[in-house]
Amino acid sequence: MLIVQKYGGTSVGTLERIEEVSKRVIDTKKAGNDVVVVVSAMSGVTNKLIEYAEYFTKIAPASKDMDMLLSAGERVTSSLLSIALNEKGYEAVAMSGRAAGIITDNTHTKARILEIDCTNLKKALGEGKIVVVAGFQGVSVDGDVTTLGRGGSDLSAVALAGALHADLCEIYTDVDGVYTTDPRIEPKAKKLDKISYDEMLELASMGAKVLQNRSVELAKKLNVNLVTRSSFNNNEGTLITGEANMENSSMEQVLISGIALDKNQARVTLRGVVDKPGVAAAIFTKLAAKNINVDMIIQNTSHEDGTTSLGFTVPQNEMEAAREVVEGTARSVEIDSDVVKVSVVGVGMKSHSGIASLAFTTLADEGINIQMISTSEIKISMIVASKYGELAVRALHKAYKLDA
Amino acid sequence: MLIVQKYGGTSVGTLERIEEVSKRVIDTKKAGNDVVVVVSAMSGVTNKLIEYAEYFTKIAPASKDMDMLLSAGERVTSSLLSIALNEKGYEAVAMSGRAAGIITDNTHTKARILEIDCTNLKKALGEGKIVVVAGFQGVSVDGDVTTLGRGGSDLSAVALAGALHADLCEIYTDVDGVYTTDPRIEPKAKKLDKISYDEMLELASMGAKVLQNRSVELAKKLNVNLVTRSSFNNNEGTLITGEANMENSSMEQVLISGIALDKNQARVTLRGVVDKPGVAAAIFTKLAAKNINVDMIIQNTSHEDGTTSLGFTVPQNEMEAAREVVEGTARSVEIDSDVVKVSVVGVGMKSHSGIASLAFTTLADEGINIQMISTSEIKISMIVASKYGELAVRALHKAYKLDA
Repeated sequence: MLIVQKYGGTSVGTLERIEEVSKRVIDTKKAGNDVVVVVSAMSGVTNKLIEYAEYFTKIAPASKDMDMLLSAGERVTSSLLSIALNEKGYEAVAMSGRAAGIITDNTHTKARILEIDCTNLKKALGEGKIVVVAGFQGVSVDGDVTTLGRGGSDLSAVALAGALHADLCEIYTDVDGVYTTDPRIEPKAKKLDKISYDEMLELASMGAKVLQNRSVELAKKLNVNLVTRSSFNNNEGTLITGEANMENSSMEQVLISGIALDKNQARVTLRGVVDKPGVAAAIFTKLAAKNINVDMIIQNTSHEDGTTSLGFTVPQNEMEAAREVVEGTARSVEIDSDVVKVSVVGVGMKSHSGIASLAFTTLADEGINIQMISTSEIKISMIVASKYGELAVRALHKAYKLDA
Repeated sequence: MLIVQKYGGTSVGTLERIEEVSKRVIDTKKAGNDVVVVVSAMSGVTNKLIEYAEYFTKIAPASKDMDMLLSAGERVTSSLLSIALNEKGYEAVAMSGRAAGIITDNTHTKARILEIDCTNLKKALGEGKIVVVAGFQGVSVDGDVTTLGRGGSDLSAVALAGALHADLCEIYTDVDGVYTTDPRIEPKAKKLDKISYDEMLELASMGAKVLQNRSVELAKKLNVNLVTRSSFNNNEGTLITGEANMENSSMEQVLISGIALDKNQARVTLRGVVDKPGVAAAIFTKLAAKNINVDMIIQNTSHEDGTTSLGFTVPQNEMEAAREVVEGTARSVEIDSDVVKVSVVGVGMKSHSGIASLAFTTLADEGINIQMISTSEIKISMIVASKYGELAVRALHKAYKLDA
């Protein structure tokens, strides 16, 4: 098998940790696999480099210089890991993003990968070498070093796995995998063996610490089998894969994968909006123009006075920007940031009825008022008052038998 | 003018120091010059990276990996300085060794510069930008990052100055310039305004902390006017230049530039060497084959028994290797590491007689026995017992009126 392994900042946080990682890489190689390793900077290094830059300038600039600065951390880790592997008798070679052929656009500090030139990688793998790639970085079409933004090393790993048609892309962090819900809220939360790309994307608010959506989306697009697992133990992680693989492998299909809690929500309610064609469109076009991310949208049927009420949610830090946009478009504007979004996620929903009603009944039984509801094929999201958020998660986790 | 400025590790040792350097660069730019800056890693960084590598392997390997590791420090400094300059309203751009077109051979960790491709540099300078180059590094003909070995950032600066036909190459350190002798030995030592390349090379043992021979040799070859000065004050430094420039500028030519003391010497004496053609050649060929650097060589006239005695000096750390080579080639082998080499250096010697005899008389007056003597066009070197080394330096410094 060809396996891409990515080790995050805490996994390579100290020289001792890098030594541990080298052993894991060697075990993978010894098992007969070809191995490409992608590493982050040692934990804290990237933040320290940003602090350095901010000594000279208030806001670290999105420049070539900044990318040359930020890319240093991963170069150090990849060199050290390769040195450690060679010392143990396993031929390895460190590669920068440039050497690994990660070609990006010119958007410095948050470049997008355009293509992967696998020439160097394939040559080294063909020679039996372990390749250790500095994550988070690439080279622009203009030939300058670029970095990929937050979560960039995951993205490097997924992109390389896709380009090399790797059998597996393992993302090592300090977390065992994806759980049915946040274990700090519900200690009975279970680690999932498998989850589909789409479910993972919906669970983002819960899973963001494990893997960012950008990487999951790329994995889905490139059909990369992702495993997220811990580098601090030998527990099996969670496989994130296509729905087809999910169904083939489990005779009895799991209906619901998890319960997510998103605390970064604000609910905007417009009352007395004139209910004629184009009004809602105008409002949401203006919000989009300001780069405000609108999530749930609810429009009630019209009142007798020819007006309607319109509700939507935005991230809390975009709340005031949203207020400016909608001010004056309605009789009254109410913004409430004291809310959370609770979501029930599962591909099983598609083919089973009654999933949503169980959610509503469960919250009703707990005396929790549901302020807004939106549903998709694999998700039911509900806005409730903040104080009920954790209770709602626990109640739903139990109702859907996720702790079984 | 086009000026290349190189700032060493202590000059960019802290963020505050980098801020100070940015001001000096801006002053140079504001005075109407084009400026290329070459920076070292912040002091201590390179040693720390080596320590990191040595956590995994006893001896840091001379590998591609090692060069990717070691090159990180200079990349950080150059990015930060460029960010600082841009923040102050001066357009600047950081360049890695690769971007600056420093092309080297494949000898990792001590690569030799093959050529400079000035395309990027000239383009940036043409746009009025200050270019900040990461010193100590280049890119091999195979496309891998290389580093240039000890003193590598000086070498980067001199090579760039030569390729760009810069008017001046300023080497900033924490020392004011080149002195007539080590001020810790003779407090009356004077800073020299000017010195020729050849004198500087001969003073190496004294000047090594200021500038390594490798950089001086390259400056001589490329005809680069070097100035070594301190970044911690505004004192004029020492100009290191061709002899032609020396003579043109000073009506009254200085005879002697300085007195050097080299403590890293061991004297090897072979007695009873058969005096026939090829014997000495055989010995020195064998020493060369073992990469032993023989410095001074003295052969006496033959004794009546057909044997001769042969003396030479080697660096102390090559003393035992030398012993192995010469064992058995003579009746007796004596090695004495309790010696030092004192040298009187000056281009004026070429055209003045009596310079050498003053040295011998001076040491005789102090009761110092001279064990070996060797002379070149611009240098007289004498081996004396270690205990007399500093006394000899002070006496000679006074005799040649260097404290005047």
